[in-house]
Amino acid sequence: MKLTILGCHSATPRINTNPTSQVLEIKNHVFLIDCGEGTQVQLRKNKVKFNRIKHIFISHLHGDHYFGLVGLISTFRLLTRETDLHIYGPKGIKEVITLQMKLADSWTNYRLIFHELTSKASEVIFEDNQVQVSTIPLDHRVYTNGFLFQEKPGERKLRVGAAIDANIDKAYYRKLKQGFDVVNNDGDLIKNADVTSPPVKPKSYAFCSDTAYNESILPIIKDVDVLYHESTFLEKHEKLAKPTKHSTAKQAAKIAKQANVKTLILGHYSTRYDNLNAFKSEAQEVFNSTIELSKEGKTFKFN
Amino acid sequence: MKLTILGCHSATPRINTNPTSQVLEIKNHVFLIDCGEGTQVQLRKNKVKFNRIKHIFISHLHGDHYFGLVGLISTFRLLTRETDLHIYGPKGIKEVITLQMKLADSWTNYRLIFHELTSKASEVIFEDNQVQVSTIPLDHRVYTNGFLFQEKPGERKLRVGAAIDANIDKAYYRKLKQGFDVVNNDGDLIKNADVTSPPVKPKSYAFCSDTAYNESILPIIKDVDVLYHESTFLEKHEKLAKPTKHSTAKQAAKIAKQANVKTLILGHYSTRYDNLNAFKSEAQEVFNSTIELSKEGKTFKFN
Repeated sequence: MKLTILGCHSATPRINTNPTSQVLEIKNHVFLIDCGEGTQVQLRKNKVKFNRIKHIFISHLHGDHYFGLVGLISTFRLLTRETDLHIYGPKGIKEVITLQMKLADSWTNYRLIFHELTSKASEVIFEDNQVQVSTIPLDHRVYTNGFLFQEKPGERKLRVGAAIDANIDKAYYRKLKQGFDVVNNDGDLIKNADVTSPPVKPKSYAFCSDTAYNESILPIIKDVDVLYHESTFLEKHEKLAKPTKHSTAKQAAKIAKQANVKTLILGHYSTRYDNLNAFKSEAQEVFNSTIELSKEGKTFKFN
Repeated sequence: MKLTILGCHSATPRINTNPTSQVLEIKNHVFLIDCGEGTQVQLRKNKVKFNRIKHIFISHLHGDHYFGLVGLISTFRLLTRETDLHIYGPKGIKEVITLQMKLADSWTNYRLIFHELTSKASEVIFEDNQVQVSTIPLDHRVYTNGFLFQEKPGERKLRVGAAIDANIDKAYYRKLKQGFDVVNNDGDLIKNADVTSPPVKPKSYAFCSDTAYNESILPIIKDVDVLYHESTFLEKHEKLAKPTKHSTAKQAAKIAKQANVKTLILGHYSTRYDNLNAFKSEAQEVFNSTIELSKEGKTFKFN
């Protein structure tokens, strides 16, 4: 699982900072999460192949999270994309994108499929053999979802030497990987655990931006490997966090601690702060597992 | 009169090229012309003060000419702008901007005034004591206007020494600047031309993008000082220019020659070309006055 930060600042794009966008590579997928203005250039800078993006998840319809989407969709068209593109986001996203296509008299030559979200409870919005994506309802000024990305358990690892020693026919290897006990060439029952090892533990990533401090997300994100939680402000500006429905670094850390996550990534910084280390220090006072600061162009690998 | 190129490439923003946007400083105005994605960052890079922009002119509703507009409007709001902002552009522009504000539940705290254009004939869309702006109907795939910016003639220059020698009371200086003859302290009529010089010749700038080769604009842009005319393609790709309703460098030069302009600026280059000098060479074969290549961050001064 690999996460690349394209933008991690709030509000407005500037010369050296970008609004929210991330690329999550998980199993064989390349998911784009949020798409602030300038995201397509950030994708180019970070050498993300456009054609590998098939699913885009938009948390909410504030500009710093989606103003780059219509341009990206247009660029895909100009590059004669043929691959389907799925967009997951709040109701209204289809209208605003299609209105802009209509005014430009420019329709995509690839299939553009909108999945508009309205539920206030967590729901599964994407699923295949390897990955499941669910919403994390957040508490912000407009309807907003975070997203929980979960790998599904893989197959058990066959210890081939042990299987040969146990005189098991190769035709049963597939069943062994699926966890079944099998009968060997001598007619003896071989316990699965004697010739296989457990699969790699599935990884999970929770993206939570933008949101006020909100304990109701805890059951959804409990025990995730990696939590990105917005920290727009430092605790000294907590009075600004409340009315704007954002969080402080300390609040993000409190959520991370209660959810028992392994790694907390901070981001969505207000552009008022020059030194981001204060975010880490503040979070460390509450949460003593790994804390990372997101930064434009930074990649995190989780193995 | 000063023109700053923020972006001069067609189609899609890339790491080192930007879609169309220009800043024209004329008299006491700072006009923004077109606003492709990333324009607000280009404005910051080129140190254009946001608050000085009070009028934005949008040629047409293809993304590379206006996808940066909604973000700029939002940023103005976040920076607590109070100054009115006038937007001139094709019908539909108000709906698309206000829909995005509605979805974000974020309305501007400054006055945002839309001037939606539908006329197929040239019309005056802005005028004050010093400047007039008219549309230049262009021939593109969607409804498109170029814009003609014209300084109004200023006052005549008073030659103070000559006025003193002619024994004219200071109370008449204002009238002299306005072009009137006056009577001096001796009761003699003094001819205006004896004590004043003609005003600086008013400057004019025509912005023409995007358009097919279109001679019907000639009467409107006749004798302008500076013409920006799109040259998306070189003549070797003329077959691409026709169906997409764009121009080649040669065609831009033909328009410049027939309109008898002083300076031609080329731009809106297709991103397929690495070497832009070929655009200049091609235009020089037809037009032997000044030809300039637009380039991101380049400023042209016309005095």
